[in-house]
Amino acid sequence: MKIYFSEFEVVTSSRLEIIDITKMVEEVVAKSGVRNGICVVHLPHATAALMLNEAETRLWHDYLRLVKDVFKPDGDWQHNIIDSNAHAHLASGFIGQTRILPIKDGQLVRGTWQNILLLELDGPRHRRVVVEVLGE
Amino acid sequence: MKIYFSEFEVVTSSRLEIIDITKMVEEVVAKSGVRNGICVVHLPHATAALMLNEAETRLWHDYLRLVKDVFKPDGDWQHNIIDSNAHAHLASGFIGQTRILPIKDGQLVRGTWQNILLLELDGPRHRRVVVEVLGE
Amino acid sequence: MKIYFSEFEVVTSSRLEIIDITKMVEEVVAKSGVRNGICVVHLPHATAALMLNEAETRLWHDYLRLVKDVFKPDGDWQHNIIDSNAHAHLASGFIGQTRILPIKDGQLVRGTWQNILLLELDGPRHRRVVVEVLGE
Repeated sequence: MKIYFSEFEVVTSSRLEIIDITKMVEEVVAKSGVRNGICVVHLPHATAALMLNEAETRLWHDYLRLVKDVFKPDGDWQHNIIDSNAHAHLASGFIGQTRILPIKDGQLVRGTWQNILLLELDGPRHRRVVVEVLGE
Repeated sequence: MKIYFSEFEVVTSSRLEIIDITKMVEEVVAKSGVRNGICVVHLPHATAALMLNEAETRLWHDYLRLVKDVFKPDGDWQHNIIDSNAHAHLASGFIGQTRILPIKDGQLVRGTWQNILLLELDGPRHRRVVVEVLGE
Repeated sequence: MKIYFSEFEVVTSSRLEIIDITKMVEEVVAKSGVRNGICVVHLPHATAALMLNEAETRLWHDYLRLVKDVFKPDGDWQHNIIDSNAHAHLASGFIGQTRILPIKDGQLVRGTWQNILLLELDGPRHRRVVVEVLGE
């Protein structure tokens, strides 16, 4: 079994923002030499999230609007007594900071509209993306 | 280490619908011959989701009502200028299209009320379910 | 490849509650002897959830308030005709009962504010936490 780790950084520029990291993850999978296995994409952060979905800017606008509707950046959250990013923690915890994709014949098994999207919830920040490839 | 892939299709019949795929996934695990490891269940789709929960039709009705309440199929989403399924993308991205279950002694480690449920958000469609079993 | 299983119990004391299980999971990882691989943390339950987020009690209060706002324990859910915990199933299914963390150099790869939190949604109950460590 081969276990391959790589890490890259994403610099975000807005408080709420979506960034497509599919190509960077696919480069790691290619470099790993793993033909069959799994790819773990993981953010070691508590105010960002990962999603698999379409790279379409209108939809990205809808995602950010939904985040505001559900997680309420201006809500009177208790955490905001000591910080100002409760909404980001709440959304990050619910949506999750990790996504797993199968690797088959050297490729991620993903649908046409299933890109790997980093959801920044408390930017601008520097975000670490850890990619682990495990397989043969 | 053994890595075993299988895939099956689910044909959905409504716009919003829940389908129990536990038996199909368990058949793949049995066929794989893996005694200990993990099972990755993955939809290569951006408008459907996977959940682990109870196979109870009243609850399934509640799930679909909650999807409507939170993700608003009739909302004035920007993505709907070019399509009509923003709600499905939004719910799919937040809930996720992948679930991982441990395999121990040849069985999925899952609770009594923890069935594997496919959540159709933009049916009727043909959905691919990819099952990867990794272990020994 | 090494596959190591361990399980522990968490006794919750309220209907809605958050419990930090990071230390217990890290003890399992240490005992496993695995230096590089993955850690699967899994609840075999349908009315609890797992999240990775900050161990901060004000934020935990916010999480529980958000659960009430979105999943409505007093909503007129159909499942509540036969039980009284539809909100718990709904939140558990959406948030998920499983989290995966990479293991590198014998340590979980997690951020400073990324603790492993058990979200009790229908307590008080005894909850099983299954930890699977897979790697080398």
